[in-house]
Amino acid sequence: MNLDDIRYAERFDGISGSAIREIFKLIAKPGMISFAGGNPALSALPDDVVGKIAAEVMQQDGKRILQYGATEGYPPFVESLKAYASAQLDCNIPAVLPVTGSTQAMDLLCKALINPGDVILVEDPTFLGNMQCMRLYQAKLVPVESDDNGIILEKLEEAILTHHPRMLYTIPTFQNPTGKTLAADRREPIAKLAAKYGVVVAEDDPYRDLRYEGTPLPAIKHYDTDGWVVFLGSFSKIISPGMRVGYMAGDPLILRKCTVGKQSSDLHTGNLNQAIVDQFLRQNLLPDHIAAISASYKGQMNAMLEELAAFPAGTSYTKPEGGLFIWVTLPEGIDAKALLNKAVEKGVAYVPGTHFYADGGHDNTLRLNFSNSTIEQIHKGMAILKDIFAEALA
Amino acid sequence: MNLDDIRYAERFDGISGSAIREIFKLIAKPGMISFAGGNPALSALPDDVVGKIAAEVMQQDGKRILQYGATEGYPPFVESLKAYASAQLDCNIPAVLPVTGSTQAMDLLCKALINPGDVILVEDPTFLGNMQCMRLYQAKLVPVESDDNGIILEKLEEAILTHHPRMLYTIPTFQNPTGKTLAADRREPIAKLAAKYGVVVAEDDPYRDLRYEGTPLPAIKHYDTDGWVVFLGSFSKIISPGMRVGYMAGDPLILRKCTVGKQSSDLHTGNLNQAIVDQFLRQNLLPDHIAAISASYKGQMNAMLEELAAFPAGTSYTKPEGGLFIWVTLPEGIDAKALLNKAVEKGVAYVPGTHFYADGGHDNTLRLNFSNSTIEQIHKGMAILKDIFAEALA
Repeated sequence: MNLDDIRYAERFDGISGSAIREIFKLIAKPGMISFAGGNPALSALPDDVVGKIAAEVMQQDGKRILQYGATEGYPPFVESLKAYASAQLDCNIPAVLPVTGSTQAMDLLCKALINPGDVILVEDPTFLGNMQCMRLYQAKLVPVESDDNGIILEKLEEAILTHHPRMLYTIPTFQNPTGKTLAADRREPIAKLAAKYGVVVAEDDPYRDLRYEGTPLPAIKHYDTDGWVVFLGSFSKIISPGMRVGYMAGDPLILRKCTVGKQSSDLHTGNLNQAIVDQFLRQNLLPDHIAAISASYKGQMNAMLEELAAFPAGTSYTKPEGGLFIWVTLPEGIDAKALLNKAVEKGVAYVPGTHFYADGGHDNTLRLNFSNSTIEQIHKGMAILKDIFAEALA
Repeated sequence: MNLDDIRYAERFDGISGSAIREIFKLIAKPGMISFAGGNPALSALPDDVVGKIAAEVMQQDGKRILQYGATEGYPPFVESLKAYASAQLDCNIPAVLPVTGSTQAMDLLCKALINPGDVILVEDPTFLGNMQCMRLYQAKLVPVESDDNGIILEKLEEAILTHHPRMLYTIPTFQNPTGKTLAADRREPIAKLAAKYGVVVAEDDPYRDLRYEGTPLPAIKHYDTDGWVVFLGSFSKIISPGMRVGYMAGDPLILRKCTVGKQSSDLHTGNLNQAIVDQFLRQNLLPDHIAAISASYKGQMNAMLEELAAFPAGTSYTKPEGGLFIWVTLPEGIDAKALLNKAVEKGVAYVPGTHFYADGGHDNTLRLNFSNSTIEQIHKGMAILKDIFAEALA
């Protein structure tokens, strides 16, 4: 039989791969100013420290690190992670599971919970990488309306009653792609609604430590007395995404199901990767490192906001208190997707907003990342975008 | 709603977790002689070299290693891996995909190809970890009969015609759990049958370099002119399982589908892990390392075979030319699963053979691993097992 006649699994119907990952290839040329992606600044990546730690942990525990590990995690890391997560979330965390980036956390949670056709409620827009994950599990994605303070509680309860979802997927802090943060007074009610109706909340919170203004808010998980909230944590934005270390924190039985799923996903997360993050926790290296990168990211964000103020009349945009992204809504009629090629030709990249909507549309929106560009690049790149959009309006 | 009433996905029906992983917990006490597992010897794990390489690659390419990588792999590793795989398989390999242990290769291949109810042909017995993977994709596992030379070709064609499988899963060299090797003259015919009937062959070959006797055989992939064979390679047994680096080698379109699947599995395999293995390939460290560990494993295997010769009459066992395992068939009526607890009490562990059969049964079989025990431990542990089985016979 000719290989062209191979039949792939139905879960791939309509899946063509991550739009962001494809844009990455488009823009991989020297000199490109990229507001696409969600990459940390190269200067924020602690290569000296990681190199030193890697050599140290290999010397101290090299044999155990190179041997097969438990699916449940590298024991010293499980210990330090539990303490860290309990402190982060300001509540007793009964169980954690180290995973290969929080990407895997979402995959394992869907594996544990989702049958084809099950409904997952999502913010609209939301992180497209995890939309692809949910779609590969053949979930039905149902958007819930948000305002500037995040998910609207009445709309959430309405959606639960109408669609009987298995899961709510939310990024409550400095959301990807909008930069919005779920208000303090909506967090406990979401935990309560989840328990009332038996909906698992996947609380994806990789940006929470990157706060440049305002007061930190308790996680939804903090208010979870019944176990329905699973917190998805990540070290990608505060140490290194290339290390692929994230974690799940939540109910032991749900995590046990995810652990069994992980046995045949990748058996366990690399021990060296876990041992390195373990040392960041044990040596308490995160607070200073986060303070340093936050100071830098804040300047980059403000430079971008400054440029946005000069964008064509009718442009609106979010003013986040942290994170990596600003969300821009251009005047109606401007098609950010169509204009991407022109921008790339002129040396600037972004992600068209339409990719972040479960049902598409919203062609006049785009996501801008500021963490991976210098202030100089931000001024230069934003001026180019401004001209392109002004021209399209004319 | 009470969390006890949570409904998990149907794919977990009947899945209770890896029997081996559970036995690991049972035997995690000091002094245990473990013939369970498939762990390399601690002395075979190159901790000094890995520590040195880790520090070096972090110094040379630390920023790129810590940043997000491409799902397609860390570019230097993709390059060296392609050359390595082409040499290993003695044929032109059009595409490779680095994965997070070959466990993930199997997961991605099932993700790409398997709808619930699809048939996968498997050896009987076969590797239980990957059986769990296939079952989580709700595949129907159909055993194909083997003899001492591996899969019987007539039985394979018969099974293809009867069951219209999507995939054949095979471990052709020093098979897990039996230690058997697919004969040279059955390899090309399997590649041809796969192409004739449009069946993807997952050729899982992690042990091929651990040959202590006889002549290396070409992989099935070597004979694959039509692209239906996907080779699953691993560095777990020849560098380190804790690093979680494996690879897929095969048709670019099949691997593209797996790459899209991997985007939402873990985005990419850790860059540091890939960079370390890359240096093993570039510095050509594998041949000497493999020669050293093979010399040691050969002595361990022979010690175990020597002890087996003294087992109760009616015991038969395989005499592998390499790999990590010997397969033992006790006289009918002895239940190796029931006797495991007694063995563990006396300080020796193994894996009951029944776990490796798609349909269970075969209670008088067991798998013995020799790589993770010293020769002294082998003599001591085997003497204990011999007594337990002799007593059960009496």
